[in-house]
Amino acid sequence: MKKPIKIVTIGGGSSYTPELIEGFIKRYDEMPISEIWLVDIEDGKEKLDIIGRLAQRMWDATPYDVKVITTLNRKEALKGADFVTTQFRVGLLDARIKDERIPSLHGMLGQETNGAGGMFKAFRTIPIIKEIVEDMKVLCPNAWLINFTNPSGIITEAVIKHFEWKKCIGLCNVPVIAMMNEPKIIKKQTSELNYQFAGLNHFHWHKVFDENEKDITGQLIEHINEKGGGTPVNIYQAEFSLELLHSMGLLPCGYHRYYYSEKEMLEHSIEEFKKGGTRAEQMKEVEASLFEIYKNPNLNKKPEELQKRGGAYYSDAACECISAIYNNKGIRMVVSTQNNGAIPCLSPDSIVEVSCIISAKGAEPIVWGNMGPFEKGQLQIMKAMEECTINAALSGDYGTALQAFTINPLVQSGREARQILDELLVAHEKYLPQFKGKITELKKQGIASKDPVVVDLMKNGH
Amino acid sequence: MKKPIKIVTIGGGSSYTPELIEGFIKRYDEMPISEIWLVDIEDGKEKLDIIGRLAQRMWDATPYDVKVITTLNRKEALKGADFVTTQFRVGLLDARIKDERIPSLHGMLGQETNGAGGMFKAFRTIPIIKEIVEDMKVLCPNAWLINFTNPSGIITEAVIKHFEWKKCIGLCNVPVIAMMNEPKIIKKQTSELNYQFAGLNHFHWHKVFDENEKDITGQLIEHINEKGGGTPVNIYQAEFSLELLHSMGLLPCGYHRYYYSEKEMLEHSIEEFKKGGTRAEQMKEVEASLFEIYKNPNLNKKPEELQKRGGAYYSDAACECISAIYNNKGIRMVVSTQNNGAIPCLSPDSIVEVSCIISAKGAEPIVWGNMGPFEKGQLQIMKAMEECTINAALSGDYGTALQAFTINPLVQSGREARQILDELLVAHEKYLPQFKGKITELKKQGIASKDPVVVDLMKNGH
Amino acid sequence: MKKPIKIVTIGGGSSYTPELIEGFIKRYDEMPISEIWLVDIEDGKEKLDIIGRLAQRMWDATPYDVKVITTLNRKEALKGADFVTTQFRVGLLDARIKDERIPSLHGMLGQETNGAGGMFKAFRTIPIIKEIVEDMKVLCPNAWLINFTNPSGIITEAVIKHFEWKKCIGLCNVPVIAMMNEPKIIKKQTSELNYQFAGLNHFHWHKVFDENEKDITGQLIEHINEKGGGTPVNIYQAEFSLELLHSMGLLPCGYHRYYYSEKEMLEHSIEEFKKGGTRAEQMKEVEASLFEIYKNPNLNKKPEELQKRGGAYYSDAACECISAIYNNKGIRMVVSTQNNGAIPCLSPDSIVEVSCIISAKGAEPIVWGNMGPFEKGQLQIMKAMEECTINAALSGDYGTALQAFTINPLVQSGREARQILDELLVAHEKYLPQFKGKITELKKQGIASKDPVVVDLMKNGH
Amino acid sequence: MKKPIKIVTIGGGSSYTPELIEGFIKRYDEMPISEIWLVDIEDGKEKLDIIGRLAQRMWDATPYDVKVITTLNRKEALKGADFVTTQFRVGLLDARIKDERIPSLHGMLGQETNGAGGMFKAFRTIPIIKEIVEDMKVLCPNAWLINFTNPSGIITEAVIKHFEWKKCIGLCNVPVIAMMNEPKIIKKQTSELNYQFAGLNHFHWHKVFDENEKDITGQLIEHINEKGGGTPVNIYQAEFSLELLHSMGLLPCGYHRYYYSEKEMLEHSIEEFKKGGTRAEQMKEVEASLFEIYKNPNLNKKPEELQKRGGAYYSDAACECISAIYNNKGIRMVVSTQNNGAIPCLSPDSIVEVSCIISAKGAEPIVWGNMGPFEKGQLQIMKAMEECTINAALSGDYGTALQAFTINPLVQSGREARQILDELLVAHEKYLPQFKGKITELKKQGIASKDPVVVDLMKNGH
Repeated sequence: MKKPIKIVTIGGGSSYTPELIEGFIKRYDEMPISEIWLVDIEDGKEKLDIIGRLAQRMWDATPYDVKVITTLNRKEALKGADFVTTQFRVGLLDARIKDERIPSLHGMLGQETNGAGGMFKAFRTIPIIKEIVEDMKVLCPNAWLINFTNPSGIITEAVIKHFEWKKCIGLCNVPVIAMMNEPKIIKKQTSELNYQFAGLNHFHWHKVFDENEKDITGQLIEHINEKGGGTPVNIYQAEFSLELLHSMGLLPCGYHRYYYSEKEMLEHSIEEFKKGGTRAEQMKEVEASLFEIYKNPNLNKKPEELQKRGGAYYSDAACECISAIYNNKGIRMVVSTQNNGAIPCLSPDSIVEVSCIISAKGAEPIVWGNMGPFEKGQLQIMKAMEECTINAALSGDYGTALQAFTINPLVQSGREARQILDELLVAHEKYLPQFKGKITELKKQGIASKDPVVVDLMKNGH
Repeated sequence: MKKPIKIVTIGGGSSYTPELIEGFIKRYDEMPISEIWLVDIEDGKEKLDIIGRLAQRMWDATPYDVKVITTLNRKEALKGADFVTTQFRVGLLDARIKDERIPSLHGMLGQETNGAGGMFKAFRTIPIIKEIVEDMKVLCPNAWLINFTNPSGIITEAVIKHFEWKKCIGLCNVPVIAMMNEPKIIKKQTSELNYQFAGLNHFHWHKVFDENEKDITGQLIEHINEKGGGTPVNIYQAEFSLELLHSMGLLPCGYHRYYYSEKEMLEHSIEEFKKGGTRAEQMKEVEASLFEIYKNPNLNKKPEELQKRGGAYYSDAACECISAIYNNKGIRMVVSTQNNGAIPCLSPDSIVEVSCIISAKGAEPIVWGNMGPFEKGQLQIMKAMEECTINAALSGDYGTALQAFTINPLVQSGREARQILDELLVAHEKYLPQFKGKITELKKQGIASKDPVVVDLMKNGH
Repeated sequence: MKKPIKIVTIGGGSSYTPELIEGFIKRYDEMPISEIWLVDIEDGKEKLDIIGRLAQRMWDATPYDVKVITTLNRKEALKGADFVTTQFRVGLLDARIKDERIPSLHGMLGQETNGAGGMFKAFRTIPIIKEIVEDMKVLCPNAWLINFTNPSGIITEAVIKHFEWKKCIGLCNVPVIAMMNEPKIIKKQTSELNYQFAGLNHFHWHKVFDENEKDITGQLIEHINEKGGGTPVNIYQAEFSLELLHSMGLLPCGYHRYYYSEKEMLEHSIEEFKKGGTRAEQMKEVEASLFEIYKNPNLNKKPEELQKRGGAYYSDAACECISAIYNNKGIRMVVSTQNNGAIPCLSPDSIVEVSCIISAKGAEPIVWGNMGPFEKGQLQIMKAMEECTINAALSGDYGTALQAFTINPLVQSGREARQILDELLVAHEKYLPQFKGKITELKKQGIASKDPVVVDLMKNGH
Repeated sequence: MKKPIKIVTIGGGSSYTPELIEGFIKRYDEMPISEIWLVDIEDGKEKLDIIGRLAQRMWDATPYDVKVITTLNRKEALKGADFVTTQFRVGLLDARIKDERIPSLHGMLGQETNGAGGMFKAFRTIPIIKEIVEDMKVLCPNAWLINFTNPSGIITEAVIKHFEWKKCIGLCNVPVIAMMNEPKIIKKQTSELNYQFAGLNHFHWHKVFDENEKDITGQLIEHINEKGGGTPVNIYQAEFSLELLHSMGLLPCGYHRYYYSEKEMLEHSIEEFKKGGTRAEQMKEVEASLFEIYKNPNLNKKPEELQKRGGAYYSDAACECISAIYNNKGIRMVVSTQNNGAIPCLSPDSIVEVSCIISAKGAEPIVWGNMGPFEKGQLQIMKAMEECTINAALSGDYGTALQAFTINPLVQSGREARQILDELLVAHEKYLPQFKGKITELKKQGIASKDPVVVDLMKNGH
């Protein structure tokens, strides 16, 4: 018999943790957990305690004897871990508020994953994930790292390629949502269809086949602009051109709207910002109310309210992935892992998001093959943007950060983009030790966001 | 409900057919067949009739109502087929006798798959498989072509890449045998282990992992020189160097003995030839006695004697593959299919033999990733040899045939190799219309094998 | 002795032709021309006659006996040609006016080479260049095609890769201008420096070394924002970020301003348009006045006024290239030719603009080697854009045209971009037979530019 | 004015040095040398002194004031060097005798560059060249390293790729000889023809064009089996198949005989060995007599006798290359340098032997483009063999050495090849510190060559 499992969750104080706990409870019979360690930092202590108590109540309401331990001491938690999940957010939602407000005020997208915001999230996260990997090399050298900290693909590439921790898988809920919702539209069960995905995190396409080996992608394209399709609820549904999609013969992910309808997505984002501030600010309110609910000492299951956030199914996917590894299941999932040739137009050592077989060996990608020039060109520039972002995050080199900003299709390059880069650097000073020299110089030049919300956050030590 | 299946077997008069029939009987409940058409040519009519009657008796001994039809009219058979299997041998075993005797008499390997013999088998087969594909395009445009005519990888490459029939899968029993025998050696069940294969037909390697994700390839290497391992019985077991295999961290297939122990394999082959003639001649005797057994009107199952031939499990693998497609199973099998990046050091449109997921969509390769220079260099030259062979088979160009002979590691290049090439061309004149011009020229120069067995075969119209 | 040369210039009525004539006169001693055929179409007859007379007067003022023949009969001209130069403009400047006005009125770049305008220029030109190549295959199968019709790289790719005319070289004046102007800035002679260029037409970078093998690129970067550098006069000099350029260690071409300073370039372009209409309209005036000058029966040399147009040095580069081929010179020039590995991150059969050795064999690229992710990602998307453009031009498929528009970094994708695409299709109906079906459909939907200038041009049959 | 040049020649006691000196004398006017340092080791002191005195006499007979300094102190010599040439032979000709005798006695090729001997030469040389590069990094960080120690391509790859000394060029006389001799056959001057080479050292092909851009390769193929062609005198002229060469459209180098006529080359080599011992033994005699000539105090120029050795024109090529760098000449030469895409089927960071432009920047390869499967497959396995050889030389891993032996087309793999490997390891113990562990083990097993010549050499401390 295999030994019971020790799970460690970095960023355990996240409002998503109850979904993760629920996922483990559902799968206890196939995957007997002994301990769940929830790790967070000083700033997140209060939330961590609330989550820790709720998580323990959830387990106590089951027949299973599982201990939930909360700690601020990461090293202690990691010792002997079997699976480490990462869902932390450096600088919390306050950092995301800056990521989104500063570009928006300059009339650009503050998009938090692939846009300016996402690149800064990577700049802040990569130094921390490096420390985590270094700890793991010493304290739990056989553990798997299941990452769902965004930008998930970039972080996974840093971990596998740069910090050389091969046992890492990146997760995302976007493919999960597509595979849950699309079949309904054509009155099918997910189990009747074959899905094949390929691309990068938040930038992938898929093809769908029915049980008679017929390619029904074209049929699904016809429905793509309907409500309730595969696009996550947090993305504005600018209309896709069906002629464009048919010429590819592929279904895009929801995030492709930012690339195929740049203009509308930007206009809508600016409009929303003017009406109600950034999505991060809305999230902060949602989170506050979630934590009020979590505090209820009678609550012993995941509350319905959590489902409504954008990140639903993320954690369940993580539990499924962990179980597939533990039980050597050989099931098909879409995850971020090393390319190894699955997408021949990208380097074999790049991290890609593709349909994989998940077993005790980890994720084995299923090949996608050659792409047409349209998908290929976009994919290659997005991977290049990811590489520039990682290079900048590792080196702290300003020119390289500028490369990432210039090459990113969601940033309109030029003087204003540089201004945004500069203001973001200064605004995130606390979390960007690698850029210290440049930030000092920028501050001397008087660079600073004039946005009252940002000014206020910084006054309060963020 | 899906409609019942029509199977067509080209080369239906083969002595292997009873295994195929047995495989379909075993799987009838999951794969209801209505008709099996066995197709052969005039020269094979007698055998075809014997096989046809045995096959019908085998079905009649089951509760299932399946009709076996024998015919010399390929077009009639192909009409509306769902699956077409190819196991024909152009020129029958007599052609193989020439393939093996002519090189052997010049002190070279007559190896019938990757050696001189295999290249000539390809020269003879490619024009015929082209005709079959052309028929299929008209008569059964949705059918799958399951090829196990050797050289299986080369024929599959011709079909998919040159004749553009994408629904083709090539099969081989070598991986099957390895996965059946190796686990026993270390007291494991096949189901407890994860196998990953990559390479070309008769030229692949594999890695093995246990259920705890541990790479146990090294452990299996230690046993590789023992009897009863994964090497097919028809290959002489020259000793592998364990140091060489450990430096790769991979298990070779049995055919690698020809490449890692060239000298012993050649010496043994010549010795065997001197003692007992070629393997083809032995096979001819085995076949004759098998057909005597098949004639027995009371025989209604696959006779034990068949199992002892080299090609066991081939046909069962074919049935399993067909069922996996028909039932959209998503199981793991090792087949020849389009690379699409699974082995990044070969072109995405090359045919490779790799671990795949087999479902209604066909074969989806699982990536293997980068290779070390040793495996990579050998694989690249073998693929180049396959390409030269196909180019020569298609063009009938002598210089290109010479390229194939020169680059093939199992042929020692030079004047004598050219002599072998020339004699084989003349000896196979009947089946090589594409080389007509060159053969006429060679005959004028007086080129002809002086071997009495070859002379005799040719006198008799072969 | 080599036989005297027959030159054919398609689009011979161009205002640039006098520079070409001057270039041939300068080089007569090394390259004895017998005849120059200037070919044009009915619409350009008047200009052709003016140019033809001027060209003949230019030769008559030299000691050389060279005949200038003007004709509307392309086939007659091509017969036995040694070198064919192409500098035609399908639809003349009126077409360019539409290319630039329609996007500008929607607030987008009408950039005539890599932007929306450039893609439409390719849509119009590719069917015509195909006819020219087909004529050449019959009438002058050994001739060289020296293309300077824009978008030069795309047209050259169509000719070499799709129409399989290998003896084609694409030319551009941008590298010539850089190599003429940059050395002066640092008080050097061009001959003292080693230049290496790589990229695509209007999208390349270069490195510069001095005679002591020292890389002085960084030194030149420091001067890049000064007036009089390597940027063609027709491009607005938005400021480059020196930090960005230093992080690459490369000098960009002037057109990179559109990619590194998207926002300023767009704003400036719209502003200019509001002030003075499009550049095409200005060009039309310049041309009219040039032709007035050309009419002067006493003029027998290239007038000074021509030098001031954007395209200076183009024709001289063409003459130099022709002489290098004719005289097997082995000199170094920057041209568009087949990659063949010079830029490993692009396909070997792509057309690229790189430093080459020009000799009787044509252009042999000098390798550039691997690129960093920033340059690589941009180059790959630009090449993909070129490929989508060619695919759309060849197929007339609307979805593919939309791919080209969506992937082009100078077009902001979405509903408005589709509107621009649609209006341009309708506006250019006369020159886009391959898109006939879609244009008919668009017209039924009432798509049409409402711009009075465009409306007027169309009324007059353009 | 540039400063005068300091040349350092490692292995200065070589019998080839007078050609090098002659080359520098011829070019003094364009390349003013101040000092030539000849470096050797204790074992070569006597020869070094003889060469040093001859070299000084050669300079003294010219109007130029150049000082020749001989030394056993490499570090002292390297200080401030401008160009370092390497032509040393670890273990001298005695080592080569072992390299050739041991395989020959087992009936295999002792070929000293690409065969078993060449791999051992690499095993011995790579540790030493590593030390030289380390010294250079400290003592002459701007110097160029011009290598002509064999196997020249492998050594150059070790220097550039593994020891990261980019300013290194590898030289060989094989292309020089081809370009000198071939034109005569067709009554042309070298200067009238365009040559393009690509491949690896001792494994390359070339195409030839005349001054009218006509490919005359086929015409030269017709003459390839005649005496006095491009093959170095030390290679047995087994007949090439013209049909094979025409199918490629390429001229092979002389060493290709080993690959296209394996059998004859092996038989001839064994026969020669039986008649007259190894080529190394013959060379040793030639050398002894050369040094007798060199001792003559009246000799002050390169003696005719040197020309007759196999390595002629090597040193002159080195001088020409040095001058091209020093004078920023931009001339065309065939050298070993980093691929960078010139041969797309090999990695951009591999070292290849190709036509290059040589200037102050070093060697810039001219692209070759895609290859057919025949050339491609062979080239890829040869590069893989080189990589395995370097990996074994660096690691001292026996399994990896076995990889190199197994993959090498000139070694027939198997038990006997392993015996050769083992005997060579033991025989070269003195020069293979990296294999110490394995050699000790082999000696314990009693492995030793029984050849009296080898036994004798070892007794004498070699």
